[in-house]
Amino acid sequence: MGNGIKVKYIFDGMNKRKIINDPIYGFTTIPDDLIYDLIQHPFFQRLRRIRQLGLTDYVYPGGTHSRFAHALGALHLMTEAIDVLRNKGIHITNKEAQGAQIAILLHDIGHSPYSHALERKFIPWSHEEISLEFMKLLNVEFDGKLDEAITIFTHRHKKKFLAQLVSGQLDLDRMDYLNRDSFYTGVAEGVIGYQRIIKMLNVVDNQLVVEEKGIYSIDKFLHSRRIMYWQVYLHKTVIAAEQMLIHWFEMIVKSKTGIKYIPSLGALTAIPPLKEFSKKILMKFSSIDDSDVTMGLKSSLNSGDPNIVVLAEGLLNRKLFKCQLSKKPFSALEIKKVQKNCNHPNLIFIGKETNAGYSTKLNEIMILKKGNVVIPLSKVSDFNFSMNIDTKYYIIYS
Amino acid sequence: MGNGIKVKYIFDGMNKRKIINDPIYGFTTIPDDLIYDLIQHPFFQRLRRIRQLGLTDYVYPGGTHSRFAHALGALHLMTEAIDVLRNKGIHITNKEAQGAQIAILLHDIGHSPYSHALERKFIPWSHEEISLEFMKLLNVEFDGKLDEAITIFTHRHKKKFLAQLVSGQLDLDRMDYLNRDSFYTGVAEGVIGYQRIIKMLNVVDNQLVVEEKGIYSIDKFLHSRRIMYWQVYLHKTVIAAEQMLIHWFEMIVKSKTGIKYIPSLGALTAIPPLKEFSKKILMKFSSIDDSDVTMGLKSSLNSGDPNIVVLAEGLLNRKLFKCQLSKKPFSALEIKKVQKNCNHPNLIFIGKETNAGYSTKLNEIMILKKGNVVIPLSKVSDFNFSMNIDTKYYIIYS
Amino acid sequence: MGNGIKVKYIFDGMNKRKIINDPIYGFTTIPDDLIYDLIQHPFFQRLRRIRQLGLTDYVYPGGTHSRFAHALGALHLMTEAIDVLRNKGIHITNKEAQGAQIAILLHDIGHSPYSHALERKFIPWSHEEISLEFMKLLNVEFDGKLDEAITIFTHRHKKKFLAQLVSGQLDLDRMDYLNRDSFYTGVAEGVIGYQRIIKMLNVVDNQLVVEEKGIYSIDKFLHSRRIMYWQVYLHKTVIAAEQMLIHWFEMIVKSKTGIKYIPSLGALTAIPPLKEFSKKILMKFSSIDDSDVTMGLKSSLNSGDPNIVVLAEGLLNRKLFKCQLSKKPFSALEIKKVQKNCNHPNLIFIGKETNAGYSTKLNEIMILKKGNVVIPLSKVSDFNFSMNIDTKYYIIYS
Amino acid sequence: MGNGIKVKYIFDGMNKRKIINDPIYGFTTIPDDLIYDLIQHPFFQRLRRIRQLGLTDYVYPGGTHSRFAHALGALHLMTEAIDVLRNKGIHITNKEAQGAQIAILLHDIGHSPYSHALERKFIPWSHEEISLEFMKLLNVEFDGKLDEAITIFTHRHKKKFLAQLVSGQLDLDRMDYLNRDSFYTGVAEGVIGYQRIIKMLNVVDNQLVVEEKGIYSIDKFLHSRRIMYWQVYLHKTVIAAEQMLIHWFEMIVKSKTGIKYIPSLGALTAIPPLKEFSKKILMKFSSIDDSDVTMGLKSSLNSGDPNIVVLAEGLLNRKLFKCQLSKKPFSALEIKKVQKNCNHPNLIFIGKETNAGYSTKLNEIMILKKGNVVIPLSKVSDFNFSMNIDTKYYIIYS
Repeated sequence: MGNGIKVKYIFDGMNKRKIINDPIYGFTTIPDDLIYDLIQHPFFQRLRRIRQLGLTDYVYPGGTHSRFAHALGALHLMTEAIDVLRNKGIHITNKEAQGAQIAILLHDIGHSPYSHALERKFIPWSHEEISLEFMKLLNVEFDGKLDEAITIFTHRHKKKFLAQLVSGQLDLDRMDYLNRDSFYTGVAEGVIGYQRIIKMLNVVDNQLVVEEKGIYSIDKFLHSRRIMYWQVYLHKTVIAAEQMLIHWFEMIVKSKTGIKYIPSLGALTAIPPLKEFSKKILMKFSSIDDSDVTMGLKSSLNSGDPNIVVLAEGLLNRKLFKCQLSKKPFSALEIKKVQKNCNHPNLIFIGKETNAGYSTKLNEIMILKKGNVVIPLSKVSDFNFSMNIDTKYYIIYS
Repeated sequence: MGNGIKVKYIFDGMNKRKIINDPIYGFTTIPDDLIYDLIQHPFFQRLRRIRQLGLTDYVYPGGTHSRFAHALGALHLMTEAIDVLRNKGIHITNKEAQGAQIAILLHDIGHSPYSHALERKFIPWSHEEISLEFMKLLNVEFDGKLDEAITIFTHRHKKKFLAQLVSGQLDLDRMDYLNRDSFYTGVAEGVIGYQRIIKMLNVVDNQLVVEEKGIYSIDKFLHSRRIMYWQVYLHKTVIAAEQMLIHWFEMIVKSKTGIKYIPSLGALTAIPPLKEFSKKILMKFSSIDDSDVTMGLKSSLNSGDPNIVVLAEGLLNRKLFKCQLSKKPFSALEIKKVQKNCNHPNLIFIGKETNAGYSTKLNEIMILKKGNVVIPLSKVSDFNFSMNIDTKYYIIYS
Repeated sequence: MGNGIKVKYIFDGMNKRKIINDPIYGFTTIPDDLIYDLIQHPFFQRLRRIRQLGLTDYVYPGGTHSRFAHALGALHLMTEAIDVLRNKGIHITNKEAQGAQIAILLHDIGHSPYSHALERKFIPWSHEEISLEFMKLLNVEFDGKLDEAITIFTHRHKKKFLAQLVSGQLDLDRMDYLNRDSFYTGVAEGVIGYQRIIKMLNVVDNQLVVEEKGIYSIDKFLHSRRIMYWQVYLHKTVIAAEQMLIHWFEMIVKSKTGIKYIPSLGALTAIPPLKEFSKKILMKFSSIDDSDVTMGLKSSLNSGDPNIVVLAEGLLNRKLFKCQLSKKPFSALEIKKVQKNCNHPNLIFIGKETNAGYSTKLNEIMILKKGNVVIPLSKVSDFNFSMNIDTKYYIIYS
Repeated sequence: MGNGIKVKYIFDGMNKRKIINDPIYGFTTIPDDLIYDLIQHPFFQRLRRIRQLGLTDYVYPGGTHSRFAHALGALHLMTEAIDVLRNKGIHITNKEAQGAQIAILLHDIGHSPYSHALERKFIPWSHEEISLEFMKLLNVEFDGKLDEAITIFTHRHKKKFLAQLVSGQLDLDRMDYLNRDSFYTGVAEGVIGYQRIIKMLNVVDNQLVVEEKGIYSIDKFLHSRRIMYWQVYLHKTVIAAEQMLIHWFEMIVKSKTGIKYIPSLGALTAIPPLKEFSKKILMKFSSIDDSDVTMGLKSSLNSGDPNIVVLAEGLLNRKLFKCQLSKKPFSALEIKKVQKNCNHPNLIFIGKETNAGYSTKLNEIMILKKGNVVIPLSKVSDFNFSMNIDTKYYIIYS
């Protein structure tokens, strides 16, 4: 049974081919039954309950879209890219196409709620590593039908371009999230010409390349990404909120009374080595979503610990701390000055955020010039690559 | 103190005039300090944690916007409408303008989470009545500064058009939600020409009217509304999910073990008469949001009651029941047939949904014709008013 | 040789597969070499020089798009519709697909400039009849490769749905022009959910049908069409301008000195019976575009005939006549009153315009209900069909 | 009396305040009667008949918008910018506001048809110089009411920021045309966040500045502009078409029989020194629009000169010449090779095009940092300014 994400059997009773209405791409199609079943799986359905942008809606109230919508969007772009490449004569078997589609569909399945805030601090593995553990478990459940997807996801497939479409400096994940985050936040500067970029994709020697005519669109893509970093992902108010959440969680964990208020969050503090990941651990991990954190915040208002209460109340009612940014570390003097003038001198958070940007060191975007010459983007583009690793230091206080 | 929803003091340090980036309207402005402080109030901030469309994202994954974003959008349209009317020479004092803005900002503050599903069944008062109780409490806190807003909200202001802008057959609430729900779900049919309608507003004898040139836009508005009802708000999969939630909650309440899993939800089952609404009760009500319901669903998976588990798991993992719609009630025979063929014969939900539509009986939209003649819309429009009260009967089963 | 409408050989040097960037649909593709060659033909290139909306830019300055862009848009929608139908198992051969694509591409090739104003008065044949003559001539030039297209265009193909996609009450021509005219004029009310409608198309017994789930979208489509008629196509200022053009042309033709100012326009006054249409006549017809009319207007400023000058100057400099509309014919008394008060009593134009609307009499849109039952739209929709033939009477004067 | 660009007297019979529907900005308003009368003037109405992008629709069929729509759009942005500045406490009198609005409204009034192709070659004055002559003439006609506008337009107003809004490295002209050209061509990369930029404008010491928070939007603006240059304005097919038009016109002028075919074009070849610009000359100039060129092309098909015919037919029927671009000049050898292999060795056009880009030398965009420090953009932005003067060499042949 299954009654669909949205709407419609192409042939009544025959299969599970479904149409989903996406506000950005319009009608999109779920390509086959296996993918339909993966979408219907509880591991994937959990992504409905995790916001893509975590705490960003404090700054951009429209940015409340879910990781679920993003994963479906990335799937759609993968389907389009495969179609474009096949039309250019690139041979891609149905099995390979399905593998690439599954790999991108599930690429974020290992994210925790509020991952930007919580993962870096508390989870010793990257979300991709955890996504892979989920994929392995699903592969058992689906009798090995995810073999191809896993080979692609782990960059072991001989057609390297398939993995590059999933994860690289110009992958369909980024294309969807830049577009989607821009659409929902209303930050017009982040819009990218994804349609044009996809039309310009090609493959040479099993490597993904972009035809020369697409250079301006790639420049624009890199530029949009940098803008979205400083204007959205690393907006100073968002950084403040994330640090408040991190420190709140740290206190809750340490507090004798804390974690019992919302026991499910305990799972995030006890992640074992990857090889010990069992079905039980993944099930537990998968039971946690944004609502656990919200409920944890609300419960902790009664914790009696004034620091915990200040942070929890601040996050629930948007009484956010102030955040100063600087291009160099704050001096001891500057910190002292802040300590003197703030309300909670023991709640000052100091650190830095880095926008990694485009790397000219490894796995560059490759450009296909006339005469089948392939050269790295940094050799032909006039994008300012030197400025692309930005670090900003912050001091956060109330 | 807080540092703003978004971005920017027009004059550093002077006041709290803020700009908010809305994906539909672009940059919008918070008109004054009082309204800024109301937005920053915990009662209003709670709306961040309540989805405007409840369970609709099962059908339209993009539809995850919050009541918070909707209320700010309606505020923006109110500001625009007041501006248009003043430009036409309609006298509106600053106090009246602020009152209308506050009234629409707070019009939904009394909504419970998943209100469409939960309110009708469990809460004996309309959300407007509860919103009013919140407004009264805020009025105390803000030293009577909400007097004007309350007079408008309760339709007791002598300039009746102010109340009509807040709540009527062509109010700014509807204009924002039709637009916003359409934008986020991707249902292009729901888009309305709100800009044109607002430009055509006028006032005659203290009553809101629409200038004749706006008739086609009004027709379109009514049409869009009807489409959104059947295609989004009362989509059969959404009806199924809502009925599942209602019945799950009913069982949880009755179950001996149930409500203790998530005690906060208990507040929804013990709403006193309006005149007994105390600060304490409103605080309790205001502590509940979507996350309580989600956590309740997750907790109840361990309830041991198979019916509760079927419904909770269905809602969490999108194993939704089937829903058949019909223009007439289902016969006993039809029901029996369904009972025989379904998985859970004791979990069949029968009922009806009505799309109330435009009323030609009372408070019609009034059209201003040449020569200052004012006549009801139904006398001049070729919209099919007779079809406008639609009832559909449903039977829901697994 | 040509080098493409836009941009790009998918395989260098191999064929003429081209991509066109459409502001509404994004990247669209020219399906094959024959269609490419037809687009490059002078008969089709002429459509670049004819505005789709004629004189409408007096009211909506953005509405300056060409018939060329519309024809390419309709071609794109045809390609999408064929794809949807094939995915539902409807058998359409490549030859049939190409035929339908060519038929819709060329459906407007027989339009004169400012056709709404000039054709009805001066050309005894419909533009479809002239389009057919062009198609026949092209068929000779292209060695019979347009046979299938002509069979479809003339509704003689056994797969009737192919013709219905080209011309019917729900054809792809209308879908493109409603969308495009709405996009360019900025009349948001005209936007239709074309993507959804196309996804809902199906075929039963060789007839085009719409699946039941598409009913609301069809209602919206009919509604948008009616709005576009009165708000754009038959806007009273546009009617005034068109009548001014018609009467100017009539005077020019009759005037002894007139037509010599711009001899090319003479061709429009000497259209022979269809069976006498020769290559020479079509070449002459095809040499005329908007610029001939503009130049004619400018030349006639020196004609010495004050009536001609008033009309020409009015059209060039937007000193347009006034237009009153009424639901019933103007009485002799009303006309006399206007005559007394206007500047040019001999330049009063009286007549009527009709928005034909949806016909419930013949060739209804057919709806596919469950159980493969097919019924006419008017039996299941709540659109107000009775109001659908609207006539408005006008009186135009300066 | 006029009857309006669009639609609506705010007060019937009182004044000429009008609303215009713009597909990009929605409803926009004509600010006062004087501006209304200027828009209704034949000099301005002529801009309806001149396409903003000249021959660009050969590459982007949607790009057929007029200079008229652009000028109204720039007027709208000026109104918005003045509103923002006044809200920040910058004193701008009504007279100054009107002057700035008129200056930007009329800034392009001196353009010839197909100006990019024809002006540089045949007209010894910039279009701004000719616009100024038109403004002076209008100032006589309107009894000196354009004094303020002329002072601003010629950068002699003491509030320098008013002129900077009209013409500078971040003026409202550019903001409108980048947006509009992007909208109509469908080149998504050109979209700029104009709303955000305008909100960030401020004034220090009578100079226009951008608040620091707007830096990313400015970077994006410069980037979009560069993209639009190479992807649209200087697209190689557009360059080819422009060179064809230039050479066709040159031949027509030299030919003994040529110019008589379309005598009006003669005016473009006989532009006197600026101080000799008389009303008569401006009237003549103003009588020419796109249709004269189109008619000229069509007439010249019968000229008997095979070179003229090749070019005219190529332009009319889109049989465009090929264009090769290179970063360095073509060598004699390369040119010889082309000559050998092309169809018309005497019709080879060689030259270069330069995208001037952002200048760090003079009149930089100024950024307002905290503490009221103002510094040039190039000192704080990470845009790649060094690459900003690009020259490309072309060789064009058939």
